[in-house]
Amino acid sequence: MMSSSKRSFAPPSKAEIFRESVRPGDAAEVERLVRLTGVFSPSEIMIARELVEENLVKGAEASGYHFLIADGVEGIDGYACFGPISGTHARYELYWIAVRPDARRAGLGKRLQKATEARVKAMGGAMLIAETSTTPHYEAARGFYLAQGYKLLAEVPDWHDDGDGLAIFGKRL
Amino acid sequence: MMSSSKRSFAPPSKAEIFRESVRPGDAAEVERLVRLTGVFSPSEIMIARELVEENLVKGAEASGYHFLIADGVEGIDGYACFGPISGTHARYELYWIAVRPDARRAGLGKRLQKATEARVKAMGGAMLIAETSTTPHYEAARGFYLAQGYKLLAEVPDWHDDGDGLAIFGKRL
Repeated sequence: MMSSSKRSFAPPSKAEIFRESVRPGDAAEVERLVRLTGVFSPSEIMIARELVEENLVKGAEASGYHFLIADGVEGIDGYACFGPISGTHARYELYWIAVRPDARRAGLGKRLQKATEARVKAMGGAMLIAETSTTPHYEAARGFYLAQGYKLLAEVPDWHDDGDGLAIFGKRL
Repeated sequence: MMSSSKRSFAPPSKAEIFRESVRPGDAAEVERLVRLTGVFSPSEIMIARELVEENLVKGAEASGYHFLIADGVEGIDGYACFGPISGTHARYELYWIAVRPDARRAGLGKRLQKATEARVKAMGGAMLIAETSTTPHYEAARGFYLAQGYKLLAEVPDWHDDGDGLAIFGKRL
């Protein structure tokens, strides 16, 4: 008798492989991608780019900024940036996750998130932290984290600016 | 008639002057001082030293780590390290404040704190954030911030490690 698992197609690997090594062209690519999402402010876009440049100059270990990059037909389709939180034990932060608007329907955001969690766990991480804003503008981001199994650990009122608090999410790995 | 204000001694300047420019010898001095307090873990002590080194290599502006240093007879008596929080508007973080145990009675901690607040306000800061641990070991630090007019904005459970949360304090300037 054939087991049902043998008949079904193999499910996608839990830890999908994305590119980890950052290339010089990625800085401009990431800036373009983050701008394209229409969510982030000019200063946030500059920070996104700077994290890539930090990795390029110092390497992933010394910079503390690790990447998973999804290459598409025309440049980068999405990426995640993460690293250990200094002064903590086995806590990592997801600094950035962004996906081209036209690649969202294919679930690339979820796949990058899953791959990041697997990578962080392999690096010894016990908890992954994701921070975003408490404003209505970031409701989709907060909903995304909750849907991915993250818990809202705390909210810090007026963190970014008056009326713009910090929402801190966390997931045990 | 003499006014009472003329008869009294001049109060200490609200913004006491401490040394802002970091010198090469300060890295070892800060490490020694932070170790002397007996509060911080080896990894925290390394971070304290690294922030000094970042300032020495890149300067205060580019590194984002500004200092106020209280020079004593034998090396540094205390210091504060602070800087703008990226991705926020006019929010600054007090990364570090440490004082030699034998200089605490003279109120050096409070004076460094007051001077830091004045300096941050002069730099355009609207809120100063101070983070510490929720564990009993850091009760004195939490009490210090509360006594200095800081409010507990949020607590993040298990932030540093299981059972060791993050306490986030803030003060409007």
